Amino acid sequence: MLVVMEAKATKEEVTTVISYLQSLNLKAEELPGANRVAIGVTGNKKHISHQEVQRMPGVKELIQVTHKYKRVSREFYPDNTIVKVKNALFGGNAPVLIAGPCSVESEDQIMRTAEMLKSLGVEVLRGGIFKPRTSPYDFQGLGYKGLELLKKASVASDLPICVELMNPEDISLFEHEVDIIQIGARNMQNFDLLKKLGKIQTPVLLKRGASSTVEEFLLAAEYILDGGNSNVILCERGIRTFETSTRNTLDLNSVALIRKMSHLPIIVDPCHAAGRHDLVTPLAMAAMAVGAQGLIIETHPEPFKALSDANQQLDFEQFSEFVSQYKRIQEVLKPVVSLK
Amino acid sequence: MLVVMEAKATKEEVTTVISYLQSLNLKAEELPGANRVAIGVTGNKKHISHQEVQRMPGVKELIQVTHKYKRVSREFYPDNTIVKVKNALFGGNAPVLIAGPCSVESEDQIMRTAEMLKSLGVEVLRGGIFKPRTSPYDFQGLGYKGLELLKKASVASDLPICVELMNPEDISLFEHEVDIIQIGARNMQNFDLLKKLGKIQTPVLLKRGASSTVEEFLLAAEYILDGGNSNVILCERGIRTFETSTRNTLDLNSVALIRKMSHLPIIVDPCHAAGRHDLVTPLAMAAMAVGAQGLIIETHPEPFKALSDANQQLDFEQFSEFVSQYKRIQEVLKPVVSLK
Amino acid sequence: MLVVMEAKATKEEVTTVISYLQSLNLKAEELPGANRVAIGVTGNKKHISHQEVQRMPGVKELIQVTHKYKRVSREFYPDNTIVKVKNALFGGNAPVLIAGPCSVESEDQIMRTAEMLKSLGVEVLRGGIFKPRTSPYDFQGLGYKGLELLKKASVASDLPICVELMNPEDISLFEHEVDIIQIGARNMQNFDLLKKLGKIQTPVLLKRGASSTVEEFLLAAEYILDGGNSNVILCERGIRTFETSTRNTLDLNSVALIRKMSHLPIIVDPCHAAGRHDLVTPLAMAAMAVGAQGLIIETHPEPFKALSDANQQLDFEQFSEFVSQYKRIQEVLKPVVSLK
Amino acid sequence: MLVVMEAKATKEEVTTVISYLQSLNLKAEELPGANRVAIGVTGNKKHISHQEVQRMPGVKELIQVTHKYKRVSREFYPDNTIVKVKNALFGGNAPVLIAGPCSVESEDQIMRTAEMLKSLGVEVLRGGIFKPRTSPYDFQGLGYKGLELLKKASVASDLPICVELMNPEDISLFEHEVDIIQIGARNMQNFDLLKKLGKIQTPVLLKRGASSTVEEFLLAAEYILDGGNSNVILCERGIRTFETSTRNTLDLNSVALIRKMSHLPIIVDPCHAAGRHDLVTPLAMAAMAVGAQGLIIETHPEPFKALSDANQQLDFEQFSEFVSQYKRIQEVLKPVVSLK
Repeated sequence: MLVVMEAKATKEEVTTVISYLQSLNLKAEELPGANRVAIGVTGNKKHISHQEVQRMPGVKELIQVTHKYKRVSREFYPDNTIVKVKNALFGGNAPVLIAGPCSVESEDQIMRTAEMLKSLGVEVLRGGIFKPRTSPYDFQGLGYKGLELLKKASVASDLPICVELMNPEDISLFEHEVDIIQIGARNMQNFDLLKKLGKIQTPVLLKRGASSTVEEFLLAAEYILDGGNSNVILCERGIRTFETSTRNTLDLNSVALIRKMSHLPIIVDPCHAAGRHDLVTPLAMAAMAVGAQGLIIETHPEPFKALSDANQQLDFEQFSEFVSQYKRIQEVLKPVVSLK
Repeated sequence: MLVVMEAKATKEEVTTVISYLQSLNLKAEELPGANRVAIGVTGNKKHISHQEVQRMPGVKELIQVTHKYKRVSREFYPDNTIVKVKNALFGGNAPVLIAGPCSVESEDQIMRTAEMLKSLGVEVLRGGIFKPRTSPYDFQGLGYKGLELLKKASVASDLPICVELMNPEDISLFEHEVDIIQIGARNMQNFDLLKKLGKIQTPVLLKRGASSTVEEFLLAAEYILDGGNSNVILCERGIRTFETSTRNTLDLNSVALIRKMSHLPIIVDPCHAAGRHDLVTPLAMAAMAVGAQGLIIETHPEPFKALSDANQQLDFEQFSEFVSQYKRIQEVLKPVVSLK
Repeated sequence: MLVVMEAKATKEEVTTVISYLQSLNLKAEELPGANRVAIGVTGNKKHISHQEVQRMPGVKELIQVTHKYKRVSREFYPDNTIVKVKNALFGGNAPVLIAGPCSVESEDQIMRTAEMLKSLGVEVLRGGIFKPRTSPYDFQGLGYKGLELLKKASVASDLPICVELMNPEDISLFEHEVDIIQIGARNMQNFDLLKKLGKIQTPVLLKRGASSTVEEFLLAAEYILDGGNSNVILCERGIRTFETSTRNTLDLNSVALIRKMSHLPIIVDPCHAAGRHDLVTPLAMAAMAVGAQGLIIETHPEPFKALSDANQQLDFEQFSEFVSQYKRIQEVLKPVVSLK
Repeated sequence: MLVVMEAKATKEEVTTVISYLQSLNLKAEELPGANRVAIGVTGNKKHISHQEVQRMPGVKELIQVTHKYKRVSREFYPDNTIVKVKNALFGGNAPVLIAGPCSVESEDQIMRTAEMLKSLGVEVLRGGIFKPRTSPYDFQGLGYKGLELLKKASVASDLPICVELMNPEDISLFEHEVDIIQIGARNMQNFDLLKKLGKIQTPVLLKRGASSTVEEFLLAAEYILDGGNSNVILCERGIRTFETSTRNTLDLNSVALIRKMSHLPIIVDPCHAAGRHDLVTPLAMAAMAVGAQGLIIETHPEPFKALSDANQQLDFEQFSEFVSQYKRIQEVLKPVVSLK
């Protein structure tokens, strides 16, 4: 940590800050500059509130040198973490595909979808049962009934399932009934939820908040790892920007960056970023090319009639075309992407 | 609603869309233009998913004409809603002041603060007991012990209390023990929480999400009103933008706008917007001038030693100076602000 | 255009708006709704200021149905525009590579770079001579001397050159001396410059402003096309968002979208988006996969010593590695990307 | 400056960086930490490119301790700069009012406006003659003819005039014919223009770019001061954010902050921020309360018929009502705002 003093700070003010820091068993060294003094601080800073120092007379700014996250970083754990979900290995040598409808709507819909996915080699089935909707007047999901239908489709297709958890009260149910617990963008900083997820071992798919920085995203994952659960899969799904011609702005910089900074697997959701089905495949290809370790794609037998996010789901024909492009690009990417 | 067709849409495609809309008992009229056709749709659109139409062949865009919120709008209820909290009237003729420390830290701290606030005429005491923190390694609040201390300070000072709720499981406790339930920015779209708040009558202070639009903010309030609780106080606290020289960007446009669009009272939190104590008073004055119906201000006997947000809390001397400016500006604003 | 009236608008107000619109030879039809009236307007709207109507009593909102741009849209011209620069065809069947240093710094630097690029099959040489710098104390470019060096390298390597234009006074010089005139992100809405570029036929590389929407980007190109010059190459280079871990956020949604909306070729600059050399290659691959028709990459013999943007330029070894990945992905993409 | 090394950086890498810095006559001290080493650098850093160091092996991050601007900061010049424009003193004891139409449209319009403004005590007349418009199909201004009309109104009313400059070629004309040269938001980083403005002494009204940080804004002003012209008035006019319910988001944090950081006067333009006339007065009051040293307001005899920005201009009745509120708030603010 670096404490930058005001240009007009007195010697006494500098000394007071240094003495204070030393009283906390920290090493504090004066770094005189042309216009101002800075104080370099090293040692175990666990016991000070950084803002405490910020308020001392003569202090201009505090500059953090290290990031707050530890367990999620490659410096802490240099190899790739592999999250195993039945036969699928997130973070392994091959990318993993999760797909399914935005919302579970009927037995027929989810059974047909699971069958189609299985036949195309998709590894995980997804489906929403509680839907977070901006307006109270929009479809809110089938609830526990939806979970039953998903389970049925899972048994029939032998595909593991990925379901979004909204309410902390449902954790003990999800822990055993669901193969991957999805935490949606709006709940990325629902810290009570994150703490509880740290106490179980079920894999968690953590979506980036639409206006969360990469650092906040990693710190949200840190909550889960710090609690004891390291089965975390990160998911980039677009951020909120000034641009309104697409639903969100897919941030592939973040994927390239997180591949370097963290050992956790990261996948991409191009559907929520685009908000329109005709951009899904090109964005999915871009995600693969930048180094994503998997994709989550929405598909529906009749997107036309979907009760939520109709416009961003692929119909089965589009989905099948997507899969064939996905397989082709995978071939060439194996040797292309050498990120670590 | 307006359905805009592609320039190249065929007559048949237009007819199909119109027939479909009519089958839902909607009135659909063709509006021929120079380059393309649009279809004007009126009637009760409750039973259609808008995106369903979006997917039909030849459809370019769907344009919503009306907002999704109803109960929160002035068109629904033209007068100001007044939320009564003991003697304080949010939305009444005079602004209301909420103040207190970011976190409750000790009995001494909260008792001294409550006494000081009471002596200056502040109407409501605030204090955090569960703190949503970006990093798992930061102070997380005193929990229920903090609530006890707050209650003690409330009894001693005769001030009602405003406390942030994090976990839906605590609602039944908060319903009776707390005078205003605060919902923080990160939970603005925690829909399970919002639905439960609709079932009680305790006043709710709903903070705007740091990256929520005004429309999303009003729709979050709509969840609570639609559930049956109309005691909602809105709170602008700054939004996330590209600017990093302050913690958030205080959006006073939103306050002026919401005064026009909604009947709910709206107050401002200048501390979280600024992130630094020396900007709090000028921003608070600006909030008053734009038409805010109250303020929420953080103050601490020794901000220097605060365990959270140390840099944005006013010490008692600064707070007292703030109150005297607040009283002065109130005098002149009475006749100045004639918003409705 | 749709004129939405207030719920409380009187019949008289509606009639006044309609009469006014009809007086401008527009067709205006009343569209009665459940809560409010809307007025559908068709015809040649060239002669009305839209805001004029906005101000009329009883008017709530004006909704534009059509975009303001015409000449840049696929509806206006459905095929791909091909911009020919010597042997390179932007918008043709193969992607085009532009590369070179951020700034021209010395004869040795630019000659070595041109030679290396030529040997790897790069089609266009770039180099900055006037540098737009945020601070007046940063290196401002070699100026006209830099152009001389670039020309020399161009002759020696037989590569066409792409140079950023800053000052409208230089247009007549650039028109003849430069093969592609680059307009930087900060000048995307320098309308005087755009109008002058419409009067010449030299190809223009128009970079998207860091905080410009896709619509504003296309309208900036519209200025040039409307002036008479249709040799415009668009370039996505990242937008400004709240995220600060990378220099800008590369918006590949915009590339996929513009491929659909416009006939103009669009290329991508991954260096300015990333701001760090180690993310350039993965982002470049992503750009190719999403459908970009070319790339512009910064490379320098000793990026270590570069006078500007040192951290985002590739050294020759990195560049050569990048080219080999670029060639590999191109192979597979040919059949993959079937955007139009 | 602080050079943060990678956790895995070798001793040799640290030594190489230190030796390099010392070779530039800088003082470089090793600051060992628990996980990594940092190097504190002091001395005259004028001759190094910061990114040069960034690229050295083992270097993780460079942290700038001081801002790049000098002449605009209060540390450089602690008193308020006063910019004198005839009788108006920007930065003096009283706020200054600039007003007039968005565009000069006719002699009648500008003469009537000037007369009205004079009668209400407004100090400066504004009017646009070249209009920067997003679309080439919108009204582009009267040009030099507009300047003649403005001059005529200036003589008749004895008001100085403020006019936006677009083209560097017009500087010598504007230098003598115009009392304040306005640089619009889109040209805030038109560095050629800024350099030329540094060579004259005419006061410059520099508007903040819609997506410029406070630091970039101050650095743009630094260009003018560094060139030799210190008659610079800053103007906050709203920034681009994700919020679309108003035209821009007025950033009053920036005003409070700049009052502390810089000695230059800063005024506020509430019309462009709001984009709608009914929010102008409350935002103007907020600007005064936060410490703005003046306002620039658009007014038009018949905003209804304005050829640009019709919806955000006040008619004369609204303007007169605004002035009376402005005068009232000024009374109370004199003692309230004690910013420096």
